Amino acid sequence: MEYIKDFAWTPGITVADFVQKLGVVGFQSIELKRASELIVKMKKNNARTFLTFTSNMVTSGLRGFFAQTIKEGLADVIVTTAGGIEEDIMKAKGENFLIGRFETDDIELHEKGLNRVGNLFIKNESYMNFEDLIRPLLDVLYAKQKRWAVSELLREIGLTLQDEHSILYQAAKHKVPIFCPAITDGALGFHLYLFQQTHPDFIVDVVKDFGNILFATSHDEKKAVISLGGSISKHHAILATLLNGGAEFALYMTTAQKTSGSMSGATTNEAKSWGKVKDDSDVCTVIGDVTIMFPLAMIGAMEVLASEGLLGRSQKNTPQERLQDKENPKS
Amino acid sequence: MEYIKDFAWTPGITVADFVQKLGVVGFQSIELKRASELIVKMKKNNARTFLTFTSNMVTSGLRGFFAQTIKEGLADVIVTTAGGIEEDIMKAKGENFLIGRFETDDIELHEKGLNRVGNLFIKNESYMNFEDLIRPLLDVLYAKQKRWAVSELLREIGLTLQDEHSILYQAAKHKVPIFCPAITDGALGFHLYLFQQTHPDFIVDVVKDFGNILFATSHDEKKAVISLGGSISKHHAILATLLNGGAEFALYMTTAQKTSGSMSGATTNEAKSWGKVKDDSDVCTVIGDVTIMFPLAMIGAMEVLASEGLLGRSQKNTPQERLQDKENPKS
Amino acid sequence: MEYIKDFAWTPGITVADFVQKLGVVGFQSIELKRASELIVKMKKNNARTFLTFTSNMVTSGLRGFFAQTIKEGLADVIVTTAGGIEEDIMKAKGENFLIGRFETDDIELHEKGLNRVGNLFIKNESYMNFEDLIRPLLDVLYAKQKRWAVSELLREIGLTLQDEHSILYQAAKHKVPIFCPAITDGALGFHLYLFQQTHPDFIVDVVKDFGNILFATSHDEKKAVISLGGSISKHHAILATLLNGGAEFALYMTTAQKTSGSMSGATTNEAKSWGKVKDDSDVCTVIGDVTIMFPLAMIGAMEVLASEGLLGRSQKNTPQERLQDKENPKS
Amino acid sequence: MEYIKDFAWTPGITVADFVQKLGVVGFQSIELKRASELIVKMKKNNARTFLTFTSNMVTSGLRGFFAQTIKEGLADVIVTTAGGIEEDIMKAKGENFLIGRFETDDIELHEKGLNRVGNLFIKNESYMNFEDLIRPLLDVLYAKQKRWAVSELLREIGLTLQDEHSILYQAAKHKVPIFCPAITDGALGFHLYLFQQTHPDFIVDVVKDFGNILFATSHDEKKAVISLGGSISKHHAILATLLNGGAEFALYMTTAQKTSGSMSGATTNEAKSWGKVKDDSDVCTVIGDVTIMFPLAMIGAMEVLASEGLLGRSQKNTPQERLQDKENPKS
Repeated sequence: MEYIKDFAWTPGITVADFVQKLGVVGFQSIELKRASELIVKMKKNNARTFLTFTSNMVTSGLRGFFAQTIKEGLADVIVTTAGGIEEDIMKAKGENFLIGRFETDDIELHEKGLNRVGNLFIKNESYMNFEDLIRPLLDVLYAKQKRWAVSELLREIGLTLQDEHSILYQAAKHKVPIFCPAITDGALGFHLYLFQQTHPDFIVDVVKDFGNILFATSHDEKKAVISLGGSISKHHAILATLLNGGAEFALYMTTAQKTSGSMSGATTNEAKSWGKVKDDSDVCTVIGDVTIMFPLAMIGAMEVLASEGLLGRSQKNTPQERLQDKENPKS
Repeated sequence: MEYIKDFAWTPGITVADFVQKLGVVGFQSIELKRASELIVKMKKNNARTFLTFTSNMVTSGLRGFFAQTIKEGLADVIVTTAGGIEEDIMKAKGENFLIGRFETDDIELHEKGLNRVGNLFIKNESYMNFEDLIRPLLDVLYAKQKRWAVSELLREIGLTLQDEHSILYQAAKHKVPIFCPAITDGALGFHLYLFQQTHPDFIVDVVKDFGNILFATSHDEKKAVISLGGSISKHHAILATLLNGGAEFALYMTTAQKTSGSMSGATTNEAKSWGKVKDDSDVCTVIGDVTIMFPLAMIGAMEVLASEGLLGRSQKNTPQERLQDKENPKS
Repeated sequence: MEYIKDFAWTPGITVADFVQKLGVVGFQSIELKRASELIVKMKKNNARTFLTFTSNMVTSGLRGFFAQTIKEGLADVIVTTAGGIEEDIMKAKGENFLIGRFETDDIELHEKGLNRVGNLFIKNESYMNFEDLIRPLLDVLYAKQKRWAVSELLREIGLTLQDEHSILYQAAKHKVPIFCPAITDGALGFHLYLFQQTHPDFIVDVVKDFGNILFATSHDEKKAVISLGGSISKHHAILATLLNGGAEFALYMTTAQKTSGSMSGATTNEAKSWGKVKDDSDVCTVIGDVTIMFPLAMIGAMEVLASEGLLGRSQKNTPQERLQDKENPKS
Repeated sequence: MEYIKDFAWTPGITVADFVQKLGVVGFQSIELKRASELIVKMKKNNARTFLTFTSNMVTSGLRGFFAQTIKEGLADVIVTTAGGIEEDIMKAKGENFLIGRFETDDIELHEKGLNRVGNLFIKNESYMNFEDLIRPLLDVLYAKQKRWAVSELLREIGLTLQDEHSILYQAAKHKVPIFCPAITDGALGFHLYLFQQTHPDFIVDVVKDFGNILFATSHDEKKAVISLGGSISKHHAILATLLNGGAEFALYMTTAQKTSGSMSGATTNEAKSWGKVKDDSDVCTVIGDVTIMFPLAMIGAMEVLASEGLLGRSQKNTPQERLQDKENPKS
């Protein structure tokens, strides 16, 4: 067993060095270092990695970092919620969100047309601008086809965005599918509904998309899950890996605790009972705010991988192409 | 302002009396009493009440209590997740879940075919039995129509269940719609997918259901939200009331805290900034495990309402009927 | 293994019946029922029971319930903090604390002379009145002797209080020692300091009191710990039982989680590694707000014990008398 | 108001740069940046800074960082618990603590003589070695004088330790007083008790030490509190600043939440109602594991201060000397 070491600051210390040193400090700092090593392991094992996050993380500046994570080949499948999709699009189109306080008077905010998400504020006009841009997009999509699986629809939208920091753009560019099992749970749902009122044969096919996430990985390959926060995003990713035989690697980061029996607080150990992660898999649960914990662990991993020339991605990998490849192997 | 009073046990104390006394004890006990009073107020104001919960609460014995809450006219619209739907059906069909320990060895559980949800266990065979019963049900539904809004599909299933303790059964019987914006996020999603493989024109129309939840209430009537736990269920209900002008009453019960900026931890105050609840509305946030907090607050309210002859429900109220009524008022 | 049962309200349900039914609901409700049974077991085993709590619980109306718990023979040794002592005395002398809101503007409160403890308020004048009454008390104590162990000093104060709802009074009356390892950490500390300035030979002997808590129990008898919240109170009680061979029974109730490695969040399992509780002991950790959880579990136990005629206390038991008895056994 | 910015990793990013960028990410990352700036402000205002921490942080490798914080002039008064004192001494004398897992079987650990603190382990023999070294130390102290205020006793011990990473050593060397209001709550309490059994006139005078902490600062100077975790340490420091007119600056870092009304979870806002911090003071509460949050915020501050030549300390400052200076000003 390893010993705890007294931590000391050295001028100019890098994040990579800091994460290394945290590994022998104590409590969640130890788990954070383990998380960082686990991400390196996922990549070195060429595991198909599911990254899940909730919409508030897209409200935050993690959005650009998720885009970078995709670009650097550290996330192969994305699962998120409707809010995450909407806000990525808003930001790609130039909307800016504000930094505020948790304690701001909410009635005053409402009068100013500001909507609070913790200590961040979103303007009403950002939602109005979203409305203006989503309608013509739906016209274009509808002209192409009437029935859309969610991930295919998101890919089409992503291709239009042209923003290096956009999750949808980087995902589309790198053929990383984005799943959103509750696509109607947001402003987007309202606009889809209005569109369908005048185009009754417009269908968002969530059932078909279940097939897409099922074939987004396979029994044969190693699988990994990085779940940030809880929610349906987390559950959907582990369900998809479970149906493919379970993940080899699982990293959960959350502020929720297991004591209420919720999915948000469920640990990587609990997942073993379900076969959600394989019994002998490498797992890690880090308790803490994702806006700090995730960049620390991921930067720690990126620096190691960069130093070994292992960053970046190459493979083509939409679920459809993967399915095609399987059916017509290019011997 | 009121004073704190020393609490003392009296032999045979009832829950109703206990909840009253908690109101002058301190911390969350005070909020719990406020929650109980708020539920009474929702009912006396004839507010259209959205009740939301996560699937783990259906895993627990709260399931029967939710059914009773519907029956007694204290919930008019339900929002939950796929797991909540599946497990209600399993239990209606005789499956039993086990009581265990949070600390049980998860690898041993996996070997025994037990899946852990906190300190509860679900047998693998319960999922297999679910498979056996859902397939013929889908055949019947498909024979009726090819394209289903989620809440309409759940109503059809509910009508078949014949279990007083079933949420779906009581909801169907009392024309309380159940919304599940992420219906594919569970075993149910897998079975829907398999069914669609052989019946390509089978459509689960989530977009149409957005209209149903929109018309499940209206600008004209008072609205209330009782959200247990976080997740998309919570978000979807407050979104629906927001689009109808905001709720007059909002009660959140959760173990999540607002400090991470998550939807699960968002307080009733934060909702004011969004117009999710009206600025002058009655709101209450109770922090604690829902399996204890919700029955306490609800029983406190039920006893008050029962003593005044206000329990029970009468009105017919599927969204479709409500819409019809609006279009063809029976002057 | 036992099965989960659907919970249902029955009109007039008692707390005792409610706690029984919670035992098959799920998550913390199950742990709460276990807690209630564990308290019954402590009493039936005639275990010497340490009850610890933090000062905010004395701010709340739990104060009267702690006094009743002592009176009914369910707590034999008390450990708390200086605030708990002060506020018990204030209330015994007629001070009343107010019920407020967590969100009240703190600067306004300060201007009004109100000090906030969560959603409770204490008036500045309560502290001033405390000052007026503690000075003459110190004169009386000093006249008796110059050097006081803390628990002996608290016993003397308790004897003067004449309030049935007072913890210090009931403890003194029933020879239940109260330990307060950080007696100077409050307004009391300030007044002790001022008194010592004019009476330099006045000594509060915390080292001697370590002996008192050591002899407040023994290796030979069964021991139990009920710890509400964290803090030094919790640590001191488990330290005292550890030095006497470890407790047979341990019940922790707290909102803190184990993931930060803090004493507040340390579970009853962790205590086993220290020999703080014996390896084969009965232990239970309940996560939740103590103002609700403790009365529920304790009332559940009180009703069972009352029905079997096991409530109430008889034995004399100051640590000094116990020591004396040991040195001069009668017969 | 400021806007959120997309975060992106740049190779070799330093901790200082990372903390800057976190300031526009979201949620706790924003609070962390504010914390870092607040520490800089404390130093630039030449505020007398109280640093408080719980014993588990001394179990961790933060211990060396606390010593460095003292050495660099960023902490002028320390408040901690008995465990923090003991473990600093043990480590100074060569004991090493182990890194483990939160989930390790506690009964197995007990059999191996390992005591668990979260995911850290302390060997039984470390406690035995502590016993061997504390006895002769007490002989030396007793030879000097019979009656000791706690902080004076800790200073004497600190002078003997000769370990750059020791909190007691750096504090003694730099005349930073260490207060420990519950000095008997640990193994140290037991050894003090045994010593007093054979040396009845040996007194640990906690009342006198209240005067020392009172005079550790004054109404005239600016005051700051950095509280890590909760407990009596936190309360004692804010009490001392309150009695000197309140602190200008307050930074709390904790995993506890305000909703239970506990001291551990009390926010810097609550402190305003008490006059614990002045109404116009700069305050910040960061929710998260201190082993990660504190080094991040403090390193961010250290780098800024170093770049401006403001690190390091000069003034002499034992409470006694400060009192003397006040009485005999060197005009």
